[in-house]
Amino acid sequence: MSKKAEAMRIAVLGASGYTGAELLRILVRHPNATLAALTADRRAGESVATVFPHLDGLGLPRMVRVEDVDFSGIDTVFCCLPHGETQETVAALPGHLKILDLSADFRLADPETYAEWYGHPHRAKSLQKEAVYGLTELAREAIPNARLIACPGCYPTSALLPLMPLLEAGLVEADDIVIDSKSGVTGAGRSLKEESLFAEVAEGIHAYGVGRHRHVPEIEQGLSRAAGKRVTVSFTPHLVPMNRGILSTVYVRLGPNADADDLRAALQARYKDERFVRVVPDGTTPATHHVRGSNVCLIGVFPDRRPDRAILISALDNLVKGASGQAVQNFNLVSGVPEATGLEQEPLFP
Amino acid sequence: MSKKAEAMRIAVLGASGYTGAELLRILVRHPNATLAALTADRRAGESVATVFPHLDGLGLPRMVRVEDVDFSGIDTVFCCLPHGETQETVAALPGHLKILDLSADFRLADPETYAEWYGHPHRAKSLQKEAVYGLTELAREAIPNARLIACPGCYPTSALLPLMPLLEAGLVEADDIVIDSKSGVTGAGRSLKEESLFAEVAEGIHAYGVGRHRHVPEIEQGLSRAAGKRVTVSFTPHLVPMNRGILSTVYVRLGPNADADDLRAALQARYKDERFVRVVPDGTTPATHHVRGSNVCLIGVFPDRRPDRAILISALDNLVKGASGQAVQNFNLVSGVPEATGLEQEPLFP
Amino acid sequence: MSKKAEAMRIAVLGASGYTGAELLRILVRHPNATLAALTADRRAGESVATVFPHLDGLGLPRMVRVEDVDFSGIDTVFCCLPHGETQETVAALPGHLKILDLSADFRLADPETYAEWYGHPHRAKSLQKEAVYGLTELAREAIPNARLIACPGCYPTSALLPLMPLLEAGLVEADDIVIDSKSGVTGAGRSLKEESLFAEVAEGIHAYGVGRHRHVPEIEQGLSRAAGKRVTVSFTPHLVPMNRGILSTVYVRLGPNADADDLRAALQARYKDERFVRVVPDGTTPATHHVRGSNVCLIGVFPDRRPDRAILISALDNLVKGASGQAVQNFNLVSGVPEATGLEQEPLFP
Amino acid sequence: MSKKAEAMRIAVLGASGYTGAELLRILVRHPNATLAALTADRRAGESVATVFPHLDGLGLPRMVRVEDVDFSGIDTVFCCLPHGETQETVAALPGHLKILDLSADFRLADPETYAEWYGHPHRAKSLQKEAVYGLTELAREAIPNARLIACPGCYPTSALLPLMPLLEAGLVEADDIVIDSKSGVTGAGRSLKEESLFAEVAEGIHAYGVGRHRHVPEIEQGLSRAAGKRVTVSFTPHLVPMNRGILSTVYVRLGPNADADDLRAALQARYKDERFVRVVPDGTTPATHHVRGSNVCLIGVFPDRRPDRAILISALDNLVKGASGQAVQNFNLVSGVPEATGLEQEPLFP
Repeated sequence: MSKKAEAMRIAVLGASGYTGAELLRILVRHPNATLAALTADRRAGESVATVFPHLDGLGLPRMVRVEDVDFSGIDTVFCCLPHGETQETVAALPGHLKILDLSADFRLADPETYAEWYGHPHRAKSLQKEAVYGLTELAREAIPNARLIACPGCYPTSALLPLMPLLEAGLVEADDIVIDSKSGVTGAGRSLKEESLFAEVAEGIHAYGVGRHRHVPEIEQGLSRAAGKRVTVSFTPHLVPMNRGILSTVYVRLGPNADADDLRAALQARYKDERFVRVVPDGTTPATHHVRGSNVCLIGVFPDRRPDRAILISALDNLVKGASGQAVQNFNLVSGVPEATGLEQEPLFP
Repeated sequence: MSKKAEAMRIAVLGASGYTGAELLRILVRHPNATLAALTADRRAGESVATVFPHLDGLGLPRMVRVEDVDFSGIDTVFCCLPHGETQETVAALPGHLKILDLSADFRLADPETYAEWYGHPHRAKSLQKEAVYGLTELAREAIPNARLIACPGCYPTSALLPLMPLLEAGLVEADDIVIDSKSGVTGAGRSLKEESLFAEVAEGIHAYGVGRHRHVPEIEQGLSRAAGKRVTVSFTPHLVPMNRGILSTVYVRLGPNADADDLRAALQARYKDERFVRVVPDGTTPATHHVRGSNVCLIGVFPDRRPDRAILISALDNLVKGASGQAVQNFNLVSGVPEATGLEQEPLFP
Repeated sequence: MSKKAEAMRIAVLGASGYTGAELLRILVRHPNATLAALTADRRAGESVATVFPHLDGLGLPRMVRVEDVDFSGIDTVFCCLPHGETQETVAALPGHLKILDLSADFRLADPETYAEWYGHPHRAKSLQKEAVYGLTELAREAIPNARLIACPGCYPTSALLPLMPLLEAGLVEADDIVIDSKSGVTGAGRSLKEESLFAEVAEGIHAYGVGRHRHVPEIEQGLSRAAGKRVTVSFTPHLVPMNRGILSTVYVRLGPNADADDLRAALQARYKDERFVRVVPDGTTPATHHVRGSNVCLIGVFPDRRPDRAILISALDNLVKGASGQAVQNFNLVSGVPEATGLEQEPLFP
Repeated sequence: MSKKAEAMRIAVLGASGYTGAELLRILVRHPNATLAALTADRRAGESVATVFPHLDGLGLPRMVRVEDVDFSGIDTVFCCLPHGETQETVAALPGHLKILDLSADFRLADPETYAEWYGHPHRAKSLQKEAVYGLTELAREAIPNARLIACPGCYPTSALLPLMPLLEAGLVEADDIVIDSKSGVTGAGRSLKEESLFAEVAEGIHAYGVGRHRHVPEIEQGLSRAAGKRVTVSFTPHLVPMNRGILSTVYVRLGPNADADDLRAALQARYKDERFVRVVPDGTTPATHHVRGSNVCLIGVFPDRRPDRAILISALDNLVKGASGQAVQNFNLVSGVPEATGLEQEPLFP
């Protein structure tokens, strides 16, 4: 087990999937984190070397079952459990723990919206109410004092970072937003599904969940907050033959008297002091290649051929800024260490 | 050289690129085609075995320069030359030839639009006027008697097949169309460009030519014809790490009293007798995997979350229905043989 | 259901996997085959459109369970069932059927070798004795009269085609053969295994089954027959991030007075009349790109740096010449039609 | 420009290729390095943001021509220039500089071997004599005092790390070594070659340079030193459709009385204190996935089916341990800082 002076002692629940692997990769070099417990129900008893040979030799603890963790020695929990089963597990955790949840279970603030999209009432409503939505750059005040942080989904992160500041400023119209997103395969996790087999994915592209993907209400929740009114969007996710990355192409109608340059200027102003959001200069196009393995989200703004419209493009690594990296960014805020701690690696290109 | 009874004698100009390879693959098994001459300026003198080892052993003629072809023994020319240099080459060809042109040079009917997008006046205006736009399913009457057929681009084919019948029927509005397209790398051809290197493409996705791709005027020309008025669209092409395939996701506003089922029904009626356009049933999503190596275009129709809107998705193989396959389909019409001749292969999956 | 005059009526058992898909792709255009029954135990009741959307619209029969097939109307069975469960299914089939088996169950002629590698006695020993090993080019006399043909594995086909003629001629030594093979992912089939997930395969390469892969005894059986004595080989298979293709690099010690040119000449002489085995000229290197989707095996011969040694390289498509294509080739021989019937498609490149 | 206390001031010559990018990625976070000058002849005048958008925002200096660098303010040069043109550039550098050369120009100690493989006499023979071959783990004494370090090639690193200790110990025979290597595409660099295009690489595998690859003499030089006699090997490199990674599968004959366990034990003993070479336990197979982006080389040892033989497998990232990472490892030794400085990142998986 890795030891660090003055480090928070951490448990990762559901450590055997891809977001778990990414958390371990980041936290094992984090100066304020000690990985004290790892759980993986199906693989309990196995070593990290078996589950993730690339993390062998780091002295990480063996995978155990959640019920076998002694949480009295733990400060912070990162929770990478499947949607639906997270809420009850989190509700049962001791009260002294800070919780970074990477599932969808606490992202929706409204119990009715949750019930509508997940087909059952939320099973931990008081926690649902308490949870802070952890889109770091746009919720930085609330995060440090939160006990439970619902880390955003990968698609919502890619959509909200470019759109929310523009809606707040009235620079784009709230009633005509099209979000066309393209994701790498790790977004579907490590579970065994025919559609995740190499031969079903390589050399092809297709859409899925057209008009009914579960990230839609999370996107609309954020946009509605920014617009100050209920927003409904067109959203289509696509599966791309690559491991990592999300690219979202967003088609918007401009607000009164605004043009694409105004949008770019507003985003540059909003994010100029941010380490992990970068508005690319005019003429440059964001690409997922340029953020692979890093916590950065790139945003580009383009005039559309249709007057009175613009196109926004965002690129991020779904496992980092779209999941484990943003969770660590929130952990840093909660722990009172500099926000970029442990997240300074440059992208891996090629 | 392959010999076939009563076959048309064919020259392929610019045979050393990917659309050339695909033409050879199709035509070498075509019962009414004899490949009589192949040209490739940079590789003149080389055998097909050198340029395309996968086509070795078929007795194909050696690559030569265009000026070394004796066109008196040729009936039909497939022209795969680069945009811009095609028009003068075609203008110099003898008048007895039928010409299937795969470049963009003759696709735009309006000389001013051509000049605006290509930066110079068209160099063969009378041919430009005479050329028939070869989107086979939607131009079947004009093709058989044409001398020069401008075969559509891959993006336009994927956009026009789903949209034109709906615009003609007034089922979608002409003033609010967003086309988000994703293409495999062969769409960029075989020329040496840093952005086509494996390491620049694999494991990533990005947009390019945002708001100013040269396929835009071709798309708008077709849509304007269908709508009976000038149509301007939002169009963004993306590069996907795969060899073949185009997927276009099209966001539309519904016409008066129409819903997604109406759109699907209209497309099914329009294409029910077509061999190469298939509207997939409700609940099925088109994927480029399912058309790889075939001349088929799949179309799906989905209700959007936003009421009064729908999403159309089309999938095709950019080298077949998006280029060489559609050219052969047109050749068949011109030659008076059944339209599917030589194009019956099933897709290669996986 | 497709209808053809004077066609053999065919059942494909285990049609929902990748070799099944490939058989359907080939047989649906075969002039002497009618696909009369398809079985898939886990997916019984489903249409081909559901299991293989790329084969929709061809009028193929619905998937059923093996026990629901009326074999009285069937002439020939292609069997794509898993290893181990094939032998009992085949033993229970009516005697009038010709059987092309694509599993490993009948490939090993020696019952003891079978028991050693598979951990149990063979359950249909008389059939095991009767079965003809269907490496077409090297067993052409026996195949036409066989009732049960054990179609070779993909790795053995890639190793035996270059090596057997050379061992028979004494041009390479039998006691020092290293076979290093690289395979695409479809070789592992469509079953759900973590190691077949896109994210576990893409952007990497690794060996598996080092020193103990089940294709070893099949390779050694063929080589021993050719050498006239027991042959043991070094064989290592590797998994490559691609759908299709096997490349085998074979390191051999030369026989007395032989050099690489002698080997190439011997192979060229042996295969000069073959449609599906091609020895590439000196200076050319076989590549799996050049056989994708075709039934061809390419073979190259190279002098090694070490004197008295040579390197052989073979390339084939594991789903075609390594499985379904070779099965159809054998079917053609059994059915008395030209050997290349239905197998004439050129490779799909790129 | 990044500033660090007590850091060495560094120039990277030839910074616009993939090894250059990888050096920048590592050095920009290195506590003892300041990137003071970057050269790229073809792209002189361009910013890093243009050449490598993923490295934008780091304050790196603009690319210039070599002749425009003021070397008086530089301590150390990393040289990523093409083979052949490096020797004269290095010869012209001021004498106070430490030089880490990543080209092949100074790897071969013997002038005649150099001339034989490169077709011309070496143009800087005294430097060739002085250069230390920087396979770090096996040359650790000589490196700290060297002025010019010839960093090993990617293939040689993957072959020498497993083989040299075994040859030194007499555990494998020197006269029967087969090395079958598989490499990702970045090994070919960023220059424009048809064979590096995505469509020529994806979905396929092939060998190249069979029997005559320029890394052969470098491999044989190392093995000969270890064996104490001239060693000739069979070596075949293959191109795999992935960005990064080399896997070498090495077939050896065992020394007297040795078995595979002896080999594994010897390698474990040799490398037990090494941070960047790890012998995987019995039953585990090295994979390039598990070293992507890291400086680690994994080695596995397997008994062969043929008695008296064994199979060694090594996996590394060609851009890190096979190039830029190993160069930085040597830089650390030269600079007197801990050897792993700047190289502690875990692999990126998936």
